[in-house]
Amino acid sequence: MNTWGNALRLSIFGESHGPAVGIIIDGLPPGERIDLALVGREMARRAPGQETYATARREADAPEILSGLWAGKTTGAPLGAIIRNQDSQSGDYDTKLRPGHADWTALLKYGGHADMRGGGHFSGRLTAPLVFAGAVAKQLLARRGTTVLARIVRIGEVEDTEAPIDSEAYRQVADRDFPAGAAAGERMKAVILAAKAAGDSVGGIVEATALGLPGGLGEPFFGSLESGAAALLFSIPAVKGVEFGEGFRFAGLLGSQANDELYLDQGAIRAYTNHNGGILGGITNGLPVVVRAALKPTPSIAKPQRTVDSAEWRETELRISGRHDPCVAPRAAPAVAAALALSLLDCLLAAARLAPIQGGGDSADGGDQGGGKDWAE
Amino acid sequence: MNTWGNALRLSIFGESHGPAVGIIIDGLPPGERIDLALVGREMARRAPGQETYATARREADAPEILSGLWAGKTTGAPLGAIIRNQDSQSGDYDTKLRPGHADWTALLKYGGHADMRGGGHFSGRLTAPLVFAGAVAKQLLARRGTTVLARIVRIGEVEDTEAPIDSEAYRQVADRDFPAGAAAGERMKAVILAAKAAGDSVGGIVEATALGLPGGLGEPFFGSLESGAAALLFSIPAVKGVEFGEGFRFAGLLGSQANDELYLDQGAIRAYTNHNGGILGGITNGLPVVVRAALKPTPSIAKPQRTVDSAEWRETELRISGRHDPCVAPRAAPAVAAALALSLLDCLLAAARLAPIQGGGDSADGGDQGGGKDWAE
Amino acid sequence: MNTWGNALRLSIFGESHGPAVGIIIDGLPPGERIDLALVGREMARRAPGQETYATARREADAPEILSGLWAGKTTGAPLGAIIRNQDSQSGDYDTKLRPGHADWTALLKYGGHADMRGGGHFSGRLTAPLVFAGAVAKQLLARRGTTVLARIVRIGEVEDTEAPIDSEAYRQVADRDFPAGAAAGERMKAVILAAKAAGDSVGGIVEATALGLPGGLGEPFFGSLESGAAALLFSIPAVKGVEFGEGFRFAGLLGSQANDELYLDQGAIRAYTNHNGGILGGITNGLPVVVRAALKPTPSIAKPQRTVDSAEWRETELRISGRHDPCVAPRAAPAVAAALALSLLDCLLAAARLAPIQGGGDSADGGDQGGGKDWAE
Amino acid sequence: MNTWGNALRLSIFGESHGPAVGIIIDGLPPGERIDLALVGREMARRAPGQETYATARREADAPEILSGLWAGKTTGAPLGAIIRNQDSQSGDYDTKLRPGHADWTALLKYGGHADMRGGGHFSGRLTAPLVFAGAVAKQLLARRGTTVLARIVRIGEVEDTEAPIDSEAYRQVADRDFPAGAAAGERMKAVILAAKAAGDSVGGIVEATALGLPGGLGEPFFGSLESGAAALLFSIPAVKGVEFGEGFRFAGLLGSQANDELYLDQGAIRAYTNHNGGILGGITNGLPVVVRAALKPTPSIAKPQRTVDSAEWRETELRISGRHDPCVAPRAAPAVAAALALSLLDCLLAAARLAPIQGGGDSADGGDQGGGKDWAE
Repeated sequence: MNTWGNALRLSIFGESHGPAVGIIIDGLPPGERIDLALVGREMARRAPGQETYATARREADAPEILSGLWAGKTTGAPLGAIIRNQDSQSGDYDTKLRPGHADWTALLKYGGHADMRGGGHFSGRLTAPLVFAGAVAKQLLARRGTTVLARIVRIGEVEDTEAPIDSEAYRQVADRDFPAGAAAGERMKAVILAAKAAGDSVGGIVEATALGLPGGLGEPFFGSLESGAAALLFSIPAVKGVEFGEGFRFAGLLGSQANDELYLDQGAIRAYTNHNGGILGGITNGLPVVVRAALKPTPSIAKPQRTVDSAEWRETELRISGRHDPCVAPRAAPAVAAALALSLLDCLLAAARLAPIQGGGDSADGGDQGGGKDWAE
Repeated sequence: MNTWGNALRLSIFGESHGPAVGIIIDGLPPGERIDLALVGREMARRAPGQETYATARREADAPEILSGLWAGKTTGAPLGAIIRNQDSQSGDYDTKLRPGHADWTALLKYGGHADMRGGGHFSGRLTAPLVFAGAVAKQLLARRGTTVLARIVRIGEVEDTEAPIDSEAYRQVADRDFPAGAAAGERMKAVILAAKAAGDSVGGIVEATALGLPGGLGEPFFGSLESGAAALLFSIPAVKGVEFGEGFRFAGLLGSQANDELYLDQGAIRAYTNHNGGILGGITNGLPVVVRAALKPTPSIAKPQRTVDSAEWRETELRISGRHDPCVAPRAAPAVAAALALSLLDCLLAAARLAPIQGGGDSADGGDQGGGKDWAE
Repeated sequence: MNTWGNALRLSIFGESHGPAVGIIIDGLPPGERIDLALVGREMARRAPGQETYATARREADAPEILSGLWAGKTTGAPLGAIIRNQDSQSGDYDTKLRPGHADWTALLKYGGHADMRGGGHFSGRLTAPLVFAGAVAKQLLARRGTTVLARIVRIGEVEDTEAPIDSEAYRQVADRDFPAGAAAGERMKAVILAAKAAGDSVGGIVEATALGLPGGLGEPFFGSLESGAAALLFSIPAVKGVEFGEGFRFAGLLGSQANDELYLDQGAIRAYTNHNGGILGGITNGLPVVVRAALKPTPSIAKPQRTVDSAEWRETELRISGRHDPCVAPRAAPAVAAALALSLLDCLLAAARLAPIQGGGDSADGGDQGGGKDWAE
Repeated sequence: MNTWGNALRLSIFGESHGPAVGIIIDGLPPGERIDLALVGREMARRAPGQETYATARREADAPEILSGLWAGKTTGAPLGAIIRNQDSQSGDYDTKLRPGHADWTALLKYGGHADMRGGGHFSGRLTAPLVFAGAVAKQLLARRGTTVLARIVRIGEVEDTEAPIDSEAYRQVADRDFPAGAAAGERMKAVILAAKAAGDSVGGIVEATALGLPGGLGEPFFGSLESGAAALLFSIPAVKGVEFGEGFRFAGLLGSQANDELYLDQGAIRAYTNHNGGILGGITNGLPVVVRAALKPTPSIAKPQRTVDSAEWRETELRISGRHDPCVAPRAAPAVAAALALSLLDCLLAAARLAPIQGGGDSADGGDQGGGKDWAE
């Protein structure tokens, strides 16, 4: 269904060429100041049209907040927000199914009733409300000491092999227009522009990191932080892989290489390494959480492709002429960060639940200690 | 929390050295015959002790079904089953935190109250009820034409580069004791035994595939099949990465390489390739669903490791002497298959919901067509 | 949280004096024609300002559909709709807590951050999106033969003791501006007007009925139709009691009076009576579902009341001068009907899940029947 | 489905004549001591066979705890417990559908596959795990000052019109074997025994109260405490009505009679009356929560009844000779209290979520305050 989360609950809706896309965020504590300028900055990073290596389609993407925010602070009631669709050109699409796109599966599932103009409910446009929600979540996290950042670590064959050496360096990379190491970033942009020039597109990998996080967030088994974050990440169009810490690289490691050995630092347990990406048994250990999402190349390419026309039900050739990102990684980066931030806030809200009673309840007799409360009737 | 699923609902519980582990499966249609011998065969594949490359700990792992099954068929009520823990040796574990294990994070989350003997609720033992549920799901799927299989595709540096050429070949590989291609499998086993001999462990990758699946299963966005399956897969201990189709390999592809071009085959849409692993926009297209899970090396190794003793709160050295799998991949394979099967059954049950009315409701006036029903009172 | 339902999922948001209230409906089958004129008629019944016995506050209450509807039919994607708040007069309310209202508990829960202008998220205005969703649900139900109707059965001491003798009579009562038996209705209106004249308000009971319903809808225990409907009904502001069939009257009955004896009618099981309101064990039996909701008197009355000023934190007297319904029953009737319709549609969608296999799976061998599906890769 | 709750999650399973019934409780904080003797005392009140006015079927009803409890305290992992069915006599039931029972609707829903021996999954036996969970919840509540009590307020035409004057008096009533005022209780018992002698049964009303509760628990709208509690209460077999505070009596009241006027008591807001049963807008105000559940007469009576034989598909007469409670109210009382206790604990756990930041976040800049956390990698 269209809802996600436990202590934090998201409900999403909208279609690319309908009136609006939107999201409801429930579970936000009351009294949290939301800086809408910061929200806008996050959304601008996701919005189309900023750069030549992205689509030329331009949208203001200004969220309209309909509830849950009053005098600049959360009220505790569900926060509802919509983002109008302003620049849709329905003529861009036709009944020829785009290979690699949900056109085909929407037809199978909805029998032709889906509004697939612009990708419909499957459009990358749905990441706009997700990024909005993530921008809200990031402010609550930041106020409690946790920062969530994202960077591009691979485009095509170009990998950014220089990991930032500390949190300040990570932030500098993440804040760039093209959030990658300077040298690798230039080569990545060149790969994107080359794909664009060839009427093609290219895939990539985005990494998100949470710094300054408390330990003990998440649940075992079905409620693991990895499960919640992955569910959210795989809802982002184009994401086809998710890994934490060393992820798929673990396959080639020995236990003696992969284990993060422990030591004591001023009475606190610490690890010499962070191969597990800050998560053990589904629960944070206080080290940076590191997640990577693999993004497939944009299916909409100008190169001719063999496909089927769903109206005429015949084989045909498709040449897509609309405006499309040659690579979704730059605009997906804030969505990946949003997914991680929302996952963490969900766990953080849940973790605040009823604290263990002092002494583990040893001295409590299970009897009534509330009889003093008067009986007003 | 400890529940998963929408139309199919799982609730799991248990600790490695407690009386039992168990699972409740709700949403199973009534009247489905469950072959318990088949279930037992699945569970035996996961159970410890079969082979030298697995742990020597032996458990019967016979599920006791407590409800939901009557005269060999599902009743429609929740199916509850438990598996007794018979062979636990609590002395195997101590207060030294195992690096790479949830010992540390359980301490952070539960403040010392968790029963961490044998890994407690974080133990791989929890995959026993998951494999049980998966074995039930696989029978419902098989009866409707869908087969779910799993194989090991990588151990350490050894990759099985020869993908099975058809479904029969896949089944032959999956049915082996060590479910991998014959040649690669021998080399993989050697890697595992070498790690074992060195007091070490090694990681791997398991692939699961669903064949004979209808298209149109799954939901867009938060309800994507990938989201549901990944949430379940990441609940399996040791899984640190999940990818569908080309997964992380998409990062290095161009759109013209990655898109699955379409054609018509006797009136049905088909694709020339299956780079997307049978899923587009979170929904199945009828091609085989292909998912891969990366498994980290078993954290419990015999080699000495630097760690912290949580009772004495001092740094120490840990040498684990208990019986542990040098590689979890062989026993994780049925768990990965179970996770895929359960995800698919959840979608299949949901997809059977109220069909579109004939003619799309055009001729219906929205008025009462039920007045003929008598008013008995 | 702000979500409800399983196969049908509702997410609600909004505050009385914010920009808009709204709802997302997920799980609607694709291709369902929605008659917006019928929706508007339902919403007009709930909207304020039609009659002297209701508040004079007027709102157009025209829903704006933002997604999920295309060319007049559902797309299968979440249907999102908002209703703008146009006629709010924030000056109507002050910091004096209204006795019997959520002013007090919102203060306890949200610590003063809630936007309680006009009742905020606790306002009866939130029933507007609920009635909208109910109007959509009623059209899907009607197309499948089920009609949902509501009538007022009690206002103050006036009870409508003449139950409609058949479905046609019920419809006639339900379609009235004041949906009650003609004679009783006039006396009820007089009671409301008398309360209004006295600066007071009065309680009532609304009954909703579903006719032409199939048997077998609902689930046992936590998933009972009664559980789902009651959860939704108790979310309607002012509802303080819910009963099915004889409800609280069962307490005074013997089993021999309360049981609905059975007979055969053209091969179908039927009951001579319907004391159980069409539901046994949480599941429909095909007889009309009958539910009653008790509504407390509107807390906002003109009569002086002793209360506390939450700004000055002192005892004070409150005289409410704003426009308020002297009785919420007339406007609550469509909300109660909506809650029943949505509960039934949720069950109906769930009941359509995977049908039992022919022969109960006896002949199936649990093996692969899907091998014929080609292996395209 | 078979799950209930948000911050506290229940999953229930079992059939009356199957091997066992059981429940999983997830979300319990770690380190809570559980007094199993107190749990046993609660369960004994629900168990059959104590009194002549209840059924003679006897069961030990000793719960076997399978997980989540270690050394007498909760571990934080899901607490799973089963209760074996020991004294089932399958011969008691036949294929004649019991009027007023779920026999009919189970047939409609499950097509004959349900195990309806002893009522199957619809049996009152399912309240055993519910009472178990409630007994656990009550201990956590008691340790935090909240007591949950239940009493019988009506059997047949006998009403207990003398409400306990304070919490101590309430406790004395609730602790009786037959939890009602002494005089009324004797008359109620006489009514039950008369029904039994006549081969009949009789209905009743049970009231549950929570004392010493903090204000601010619950959520608006769909998440109202009333919605959660009602959903749980309506899952108890035989419950056909639920009301809070004055409930259905509100219908006959004026606002000036129904509103609970407010005053200040040592700086805290208090109400002169408690007509709303401690809940306003779905949220507790700190006054006692009062809920009443209407119970229909036991459908299984000895008197001859007209019905249908589902095997022979013909009309027939049914005379039930098995052991059945002539009135479920005495044994339902602990189940009603359990439902209230579980609802409150769910809200209490959720309410403990992330507290508002000091100063409402005014001074926070939304920036990173967590940079001090080292970057261990």
